[in-house]
Amino acid sequence: MILAKVVGHVIATQKCDALKGSNLLILNALGDDLTPLKDRTYVAVDCVGAGQDDIVLAEKYLALNKESYKAMSIVAIVEKVYRDVKGSKTHE
Amino acid sequence: MILAKVVGHVIATQKCDALKGSNLLILNALGDDLTPLKDRTYVAVDCVGAGQDDIVLAEKYLALNKESYKAMSIVAIVEKVYRDVKGSKTHE
Amino acid sequence: MILAKVVGHVIATQKCDALKGSNLLILNALGDDLTPLKDRTYVAVDCVGAGQDDIVLAEKYLALNKESYKAMSIVAIVEKVYRDVKGSKTHE
Amino acid sequence: MILAKVVGHVIATQKCDALKGSNLLILNALGDDLTPLKDRTYVAVDCVGAGQDDIVLAEKYLALNKESYKAMSIVAIVEKVYRDVKGSKTHE
Amino acid sequence: MILAKVVGHVIATQKCDALKGSNLLILNALGDDLTPLKDRTYVAVDCVGAGQDDIVLAEKYLALNKESYKAMSIVAIVEKVYRDVKGSKTHE
Repeated sequence: MILAKVVGHVIATQKCDALKGSNLLILNALGDDLTPLKDRTYVAVDCVGAGQDDIVLAEKYLALNKESYKAMSIVAIVEKVYRDVKGSKTHE
Repeated sequence: MILAKVVGHVIATQKCDALKGSNLLILNALGDDLTPLKDRTYVAVDCVGAGQDDIVLAEKYLALNKESYKAMSIVAIVEKVYRDVKGSKTHE
Repeated sequence: MILAKVVGHVIATQKCDALKGSNLLILNALGDDLTPLKDRTYVAVDCVGAGQDDIVLAEKYLALNKESYKAMSIVAIVEKVYRDVKGSKTHE
Repeated sequence: MILAKVVGHVIATQKCDALKGSNLLILNALGDDLTPLKDRTYVAVDCVGAGQDDIVLAEKYLALNKESYKAMSIVAIVEKVYRDVKGSKTHE
Repeated sequence: MILAKVVGHVIATQKCDALKGSNLLILNALGDDLTPLKDRTYVAVDCVGAGQDDIVLAEKYLALNKESYKAMSIVAIVEKVYRDVKGSKTHE
């Protein structure tokens, strides 16, 4: 999974069935210091009610529900990031 | 999924069964400012009637229909992109 | 799928069952101007009778036949590429 | 699979079912010399009891259990790395 | 599939079931001239009896056996590489 930030959303009326009714959020992958990486933009189906500026986990490959394969999905909203390299760093 | 622009198409008579009857469109992945990224070209099966210069969503991995696996597919035509980093940016 | 050029082949007698009897062709991914990209070499199973110097489509992820999963496969031989960015460009 | 180092963890109460009850560890992919690569951060589900600073193997694509697809998973804790290019290098 | 060279192995006693009994070899992806690419290290399950310094094919995505999904696997040992760009190049 990648750590990403919700930076927007897209409107798409013409879409395949599996995406119907889904919120399509724009994600920017985050670097080691939790800042957005240049040109690392994705669009993902929201499965957990994520919103603008949320830090989330997105699964790029297989959806987590075997019966209905969905595209890249937001699978968690992150409250805290504990990264302990070169001194502890916590994201509130 | 990636945000991409339709920049052309390919003609291929000799192809495997799963691609028979499919439109094969050339996509260029888009950067943060929605301009084409250099050397990030893909070819995808069109599932939603996309055309030249459309901004689309393409799913690089699993097709969205579990029974018939298709290659990389265009799964939505994007009408609007709302990206709210450093001031709002809307794509008409 | 990626656009690639067949630039050679490999000989491998010791291989797993799924590759037995397959032609293993060396592909070089192509850039926007259809020239080979540096260090973007793959080896793919040929499914359509591709040969040296052919421009092909290769599917990096799931094979297109759900019953027997194959590795990265060449799924089409491309006759023409119509890319209409900055003036029309056709590959014969 | 990639060789990575556990550099932290995330807290996420709002997450999809498949992640419920899982430890979500932050991984930094390692380079040839086993030092962390810049901006190559992932989050993976722990399946083997890995902890802070462990060197692990993570599978980015399919989970190893066909019935229940999980996201990117830590599949092994590495005790020793024997890399024999330009003189033997052992990681204790 | 990628062309890679076996450059070592890892020892991991704590690992998930699907890896039990498997040889875990360290692979370095190869560039156009068959020399190792920097920081392109993977670990793969050996399925064909590969050994140190062998040139191999590794499948990064789906294992080739639909019933039991395994992680990234070495699927062939390469004896000869015929690459015919800018003059023929043969690897013995």
